[in-house]
Amino acid sequence: MVLEIAEIEVKPGMEAEFEASAAKATELLQRAKGCQGMELHRSIENPTRYRLFVRWATLEDHTVHFRGSPDFQEWRKLVGHCFAETPKVEHTVVAVKGFDAAKPSIEPARGS
Amino acid sequence: MVLEIAEIEVKPGMEAEFEASAAKATELLQRAKGCQGMELHRSIENPTRYRLFVRWATLEDHTVHFRGSPDFQEWRKLVGHCFAETPKVEHTVVAVKGFDAAKPSIEPARGS
Repeated sequence: MVLEIAEIEVKPGMEAEFEASAAKATELLQRAKGCQGMELHRSIENPTRYRLFVRWATLEDHTVHFRGSPDFQEWRKLVGHCFAETPKVEHTVVAVKGFDAAKPSIEPARGS
Repeated sequence: MVLEIAEIEVKPGMEAEFEASAAKATELLQRAKGCQGMELHRSIENPTRYRLFVRWATLEDHTVHFRGSPDFQEWRKLVGHCFAETPKVEHTVVAVKGFDAAKPSIEPARGS
């Protein structure tokens, strides 16, 4: 799994429009090859700054297949007018799994 | 849920040590009040750059309770010597839920 992290600065006053447009654009990602999930976060410290998190099966599913598809143009058409500047995009992979309190541990319980 | 995003630049050559130390430090977060999950990611484009994602029940669980605890000092002792500079920390909340292909949809199936 590759995580796309897009840091998006939105023009002041366009936050609600950006969020509504991103919600509408979800289906474009949902049908994209290799796209496994999407969530849009808003910064507490900088309320015009967002982080778009998109999980992809491979890096190329984002950088080659999605960016080369008509749906990417559609995505930009839906949300691009809200951008204050070009989004900063980076990709990451999991280095340390850590823990997730919402998921049951796969390790057997002590004493069992 | 509040997501802590810490952007951590690690001294070149200390990546493996940082990852091992962060894995060891997981238990400090696991027992922290209000801490719901932790995952460490490594950047593909900038391999000395990491993102530590920590989920907290409230902002204060991180900024007041954890940072004010002896476990925060312990955390810094374990990983701090690997930092090339002070980590950039920001907090976010979910603005658009999007989708998660790993989780079954809670909406009823069409036709049911």
